[in-house]
This record gives sequence, C-alpha cells and structure tokens, in this order.
Amino acid sequence: MDNRVVTVSREFGSGGRTIGRQLAAKLNIPCYDYELIDKVAEESGFARSYIAEHGEYAAYGSRIGNALLSGHFVNGVANQDFLWIAQRKVITDLAEQGPCVIVGRCADYILKDNPNLLKVFIHSDLDSRAERIVKLYGESDVAPLKRLKDKDKRRAAYYRYYTDMEWGVAKNYDISLDSGRLGIDKCVELLAQLY
Amino acid sequence: MDNRVVTVSREFGSGGRTIGRQLAAKLNIPCYDYELIDKVAEESGFARSYIAEHGEYAAYGSRIGNALLSGHFVNGVANQDFLWIAQRKVITDLAEQGPCVIVGRCADYILKDNPNLLKVFIHSDLDSRAERIVKLYGESDVAPLKRLKDKDKRRAAYYRYYTDMEWGVAKNYDISLDSGRLGIDKCVELLAQLY
Repeated sequence: MDNRVVTVSREFGSGGRTIGRQLAAKLNIPCYDYELIDKVAEESGFARSYIAEHGEYAAYGSRIGNALLSGHFVNGVANQDFLWIAQRKVITDLAEQGPCVIVGRCADYILKDNPNLLKVFIHSDLDSRAERIVKLYGESDVAPLKRLKDKDKRRAAYYRYYTDMEWGVAKNYDISLDSGRLGIDKCVELLAQLY
Repeated sequence: MDNRVVTVSREFGSGGRTIGRQLAAKLNIPCYDYELIDKVAEESGFARSYIAEHGEYAAYGSRIGNALLSGHFVNGVANQDFLWIAQRKVITDLAEQGPCVIVGRCADYILKDNPNLLKVFIHSDLDSRAERIVKLYGESDVAPLKRLKDKDKRRAAYYRYYTDMEWGVAKNYDISLDSGRLGIDKCVELLAQLY
C-alpha cells in the first residue's frame, strides 16, 4: 500500500469536502466522498442514507450512538460496528488501487500504516461555518450554530470510539488548515504543493 | 496593530524555533525568541534564566507552578503572574513596531486581536523530537522521552492557565505542521508562501 493518498478530515461546514474535490481535480486523481457511500452500500447492503448518517456520526437514540456519545462500552456488535468494518474494507481497497483523495470517515486512522499518506485536517471558526452551511444546505428549524455543535460533538464521539484518538488535535495530522482564515483556494494550493 | 506578525507555537524538540528563524530570514523580518527573554528581563528585572524557565513552563515546586499543573486556583499574584504581564507588554510592543516572527510564549493568544496575525503550530512525533533534542542539547540523566513528556505537560499547563485554551488543538491556529513528516525546509517554504 504505497500509493500517495490524501485523507481530508474536516469540521462540518469548513469546506473540507470542497477542498478535497478541488485538490483531487488539480492533482488529476480521484476523490472519494459521496462515491464512498455508494461503495460501502454495495459492500454492506446498508442504505445510502443510513451510511451517510451513521458512517461518520454517533447516532442519537441508537444503543451504540448513545454509547459513543456517553463513552460507555457496549456489549455485542451493533449495526454501526458492521458499517465501520465495511467502510474500513472499502477505504483500504481504494487506497491500494491508486493515488486518491479520501474525505472523512476516519480514513486517516484506517490508512495510518501507509507511509505515503498525507493526513489533512480542515477547520474553521463557527461563524464562517454557520454562514457556509446556510448557504449550502439552506435554513432549518435548528439554528446553524446548534447544528454545527451537534455535528462536531457526534463526529468527535464517533472518531474517539473507533480510533481511540482525540479528533481535531494537531498532532494527529500532517497539516491542519483554517479554511475560514486562509480561504479555500489557498488551502488547495498549499496541499497541491505538498503532495 | 495591523503589522503582519507570525507567531510560532511549537512542541519542545519539534524544530519550531529553527523554522521561525529561517522563516524570518527568508521574509527579511526580525525573529524574536531568545531576544524576547532579554527584553522581558529589561522590562521585569527577572533573571534571564528565570524567564527562560518560567515564561513558558509551569514550574514544579512553586505555588503557581503546582497550581498550573494541578489546575487549582491560587490566591494572590505570584512571580509567574508578574512575568506573564511583563512578557505580554513586550510582545504587544514588538508587534506594534513592525512585521516579525515571535516564537512561543503564548504570543498567539496575546496578539489574537491582530487581524493580520498568522498563527502557526509546529509539532512532531516523539521519536523525531527525542532524536533532535539529543542532537541539539546532548544527553542528560533524564531519558529523552521523559524530558519531552515533562516539557509538553508543563508547557500545556502554562498555556491552559494563562489562555484558558487547550494547547495543540488545531482550531487555535491558522496552520499546524508536522515538522517530522514534512521536514523543516518544507515547513519554512509553505509558511513563507502563506505570509
């Protein structure tokens, strides 16, 4: 597994997905994001909507989701564990097929033994992210800041549960960038240069 | 205070100081590191050795040092608080004088209201840092990994106490770089490009 692979972990609303797509286009290599969901659906038989929701976030209400959020151990294997295993296989296979950019889904951890991995984390301040999610996804009953804090909390809980590492800590990544301060284009430019 | 100022926070042994110096040389602007200690000595009357040790690290044995490490509140003002105030004034004055690079000493927090601030965090894995400190500072009675963990712990405690923020969390910086993975020269090149 010695392909040059870029993993982009990102805060919800930080523009990490856009940065991953633009970087892949610039490097002329594939970017796996939504595509990942399709492949995991094939692999696991789970519905796309289930994968999109439970493949990165601790789910409220579910046994494991509550466990993820509370940090308590759960006996037995829940759907989310099967999903993790399927996602893990898809991501490992993709990284073996050739150079690519993979957005989210703990790919940084799953591929950590790849010596040519470039681990990227994209973050931004709450206000910039709130403005961005309203622009991209529109208004909802829930206030933007509340949506962001909820997503951050559930994504961090999911990451902690499956990787035993803290999400968003600089030393887990080769490079971390504030997309709000630096701008999306500048982030893409820096990463393309690093690759 | 609209000068372009770069603050470099760094893990002990990560090469952050070297990166700060090389970046400043490349940008042809001053770098304040040891120079900062001299200026703080003039300002505060504290000895250089005291400033070097207590201006960035929670000190064992001292009332506030123990408090910093234990997270307990201390009544009254200790030497380390006076030192913080003096350091704060020196750093603010330097940033007002013109563009510069400032290494360590919570300058990222002290100058956070400067709209042109570029906040950098340099980190690296323990093994690379251990190799580096032995090369730079030589062997000591204490094993390199023990020295690093001790320094990290005390620097994080100092930062938490005076800034109320967690040290090394990506979102506190505009850019965080793994100098062990990317190499010192590459880090300097990326930062010069960002400036």
